[in-house]
Amino acid sequence: MAIVVQKFGGTSVADAEKIRRAAMRAISAQKAGNQVVVVASARGKQTDQLVTDAIELNPDPPRREMDMLLSTGEQQTVSLMAMAMDAMGYKAISFTGSQIRMVTDAAHTKARIQSIGAERITKKLDDGFIVIVAGFQGMDEDGNITTLGRGGSDTSAVALAAALEAEVCEIYTDVDGIYTTDPRKYPDAVRMDQISYDEMLELASLGAGVMHGRAVEFGKKYNVPIHVRSSMKEMSGTIITHEVPQMEGILVSGATIQKNLAKIGLVGVDNRPGNAARIFSHLAGSQVIVNDIIQTEVSEQKANVSFTIGRDDLDGAKKAIEEIRSQIHCESVFVREDIAEVSVVGVGMRSHYGVADKMFQALAEAKVNIDSITTSEIRISCVVDIDHGEKALTAVCDAFELNKPADERS
Amino acid sequence: MAIVVQKFGGTSVADAEKIRRAAMRAISAQKAGNQVVVVASARGKQTDQLVTDAIELNPDPPRREMDMLLSTGEQQTVSLMAMAMDAMGYKAISFTGSQIRMVTDAAHTKARIQSIGAERITKKLDDGFIVIVAGFQGMDEDGNITTLGRGGSDTSAVALAAALEAEVCEIYTDVDGIYTTDPRKYPDAVRMDQISYDEMLELASLGAGVMHGRAVEFGKKYNVPIHVRSSMKEMSGTIITHEVPQMEGILVSGATIQKNLAKIGLVGVDNRPGNAARIFSHLAGSQVIVNDIIQTEVSEQKANVSFTIGRDDLDGAKKAIEEIRSQIHCESVFVREDIAEVSVVGVGMRSHYGVADKMFQALAEAKVNIDSITTSEIRISCVVDIDHGEKALTAVCDAFELNKPADERS
Repeated sequence: MAIVVQKFGGTSVADAEKIRRAAMRAISAQKAGNQVVVVASARGKQTDQLVTDAIELNPDPPRREMDMLLSTGEQQTVSLMAMAMDAMGYKAISFTGSQIRMVTDAAHTKARIQSIGAERITKKLDDGFIVIVAGFQGMDEDGNITTLGRGGSDTSAVALAAALEAEVCEIYTDVDGIYTTDPRKYPDAVRMDQISYDEMLELASLGAGVMHGRAVEFGKKYNVPIHVRSSMKEMSGTIITHEVPQMEGILVSGATIQKNLAKIGLVGVDNRPGNAARIFSHLAGSQVIVNDIIQTEVSEQKANVSFTIGRDDLDGAKKAIEEIRSQIHCESVFVREDIAEVSVVGVGMRSHYGVADKMFQALAEAKVNIDSITTSEIRISCVVDIDHGEKALTAVCDAFELNKPADERS
Repeated sequence: MAIVVQKFGGTSVADAEKIRRAAMRAISAQKAGNQVVVVASARGKQTDQLVTDAIELNPDPPRREMDMLLSTGEQQTVSLMAMAMDAMGYKAISFTGSQIRMVTDAAHTKARIQSIGAERITKKLDDGFIVIVAGFQGMDEDGNITTLGRGGSDTSAVALAAALEAEVCEIYTDVDGIYTTDPRKYPDAVRMDQISYDEMLELASLGAGVMHGRAVEFGKKYNVPIHVRSSMKEMSGTIITHEVPQMEGILVSGATIQKNLAKIGLVGVDNRPGNAARIFSHLAGSQVIVNDIIQTEVSEQKANVSFTIGRDDLDGAKKAIEEIRSQIHCESVFVREDIAEVSVVGVGMRSHYGVADKMFQALAEAKVNIDSITTSEIRISCVVDIDHGEKALTAVCDAFELNKPADERS
């Protein structure tokens, strides 16, 4: 019998009515002949309330205790959902992360899954139960409760699906799938039927918020198809899966725009081995996450180095750069906060020429000046003036026909 | 180093300020040279809210899931209290019932403690931590979360004190000790410095709500002195302990009144062996809890049987009696709802005559008619007309000088 894992996020279990709706989804899947495991998050704003309660007592709460506190949110949801299923006449049982031995490392608030004890779940599935597991949480080897950090419930669900060799991991959410780009910014965006893990990873790292990168990595590593779909509508969404040959025919699957960025440029840095390492290890040590890096040689002695970061990290980055500026003999530093980054992603780029060319052409026709360009194997990103950001995104989406399903593009 | 267990109930941890106050109590005890274990209940109305959430989804929720849900309340309190202590600069760590291996039977919502794994606690105590344990909860042998039912956190605390061989178990509450009677009903009631386990057990069964009987039984069985004291005031309360010789000099330690009672009389029951068993096993099978039973022989063939029950059980009891009425050949049934029961309790009764006499005399002088009388080794209870209840209590308290400390009585 096939096993299906269904994950419901906080907005999908926010109140009794939504918990009932989620319960009915699981029951339908069981009626259709599957064994069903549900992974649930904390209800709506519960986690925020608990964080507020904690901060009132301790502005910098110990992480172990924070995990102990926050894990109660999911525990409440899963027991309530089991009650809902029982009221509907179905056998259901809820488990905490500790109870199913979701063992993680001890990195509280951002723990990583190490192993899952699937036996207790499969036994209950075989007895006809729907099994409901608290997402986002696990325990370390000493039995301390841990949590998995942002997107943790998605990761729990995909990891469970992997451990149980589930047929699919369904992620129920308040959007009905993955779109070619954010429909709020490009109203003609269309939902993709499928997307590869690699593309989804690039999109996730570019801030397309539907799925967290770690869950996608898990799916890729353990071959778990992930179906992102609406908790409100009875329709298929987007399946994240391994690359299939037909995907290579699609030049660009999706596009993104990131606005909350800043760029720092270091002009006239000594062109010596080790200087780049010095700069970026010092930034990492200052907890600054660097996105894209561009280095260009201006002479045999001097190079220019620039990089983009999240706007939130700007103060930390400026401070870090000042600390090492004399060591790297940097002539001057400039900062740009008025930038946006427009990116296109697609595995088809690997085997097709002309994608970058087409993107630059589209931007040129829209009279958007390109500040800088970075690329990966399946991604091209252009930094542009923030005032030109939306226009640039629209131009790129139009050029790659992201307003049409992939099989209707020219 | 002596170990002190401190238990804080829901009203004593209802908000951040109260959690801080409780934390400071524990820190003071540690500063005074003790190793300190805190047992905490769910914050204020948290449990009520969770019950409401559950009922909304299932009017008759499975007990296992109810335990899963309700146990989150205490888990939140203990983590928050650990955060508060950390903010004050002290080492603290919180544990769930499962984490310290508080193993119970599998009777969800009213489980009984079977064993406690003290090692994890003593290790942390030896490392200088204040250990904060979630009260009211445990786990069964399969790792399912259980709860201990009413008064469960008191029981957790006393059981932990027993397992750790603590010097004392302090129960912090919103009253400042055990009074000779309820001060709301007899304003001159005085706080007792100490009381025996047996007396406290009788008082608890008579509805004096400060301590639950099971916790007291645990204390008696494992020789744990229980100190009931105020969470708001810096003063000693009442110590519940083994009987000491001086207690025997006190005829009556306390008095109670129970108003929420009903009495059922069965007139002209066949006076045959097994009839009483038939009646009361059928009532027990109908989940009716019977308080006092009086049986009197009216002839060789017939007896009258009457018993008192909680008013809430009246409908169930009447139904149960109708079901077996023909089997026991009961001639008629009467019900009294207009009664109260006034009781006096004291270990001194064991060795002194005249206590009952003094009580009846006091009631006679107050012109209170006695409907029926029941006694135990250390208790005398009189059923009276409910309109005479308060007057009867006052008369009895005055007669036994319950407005004075024990050593000032004549």
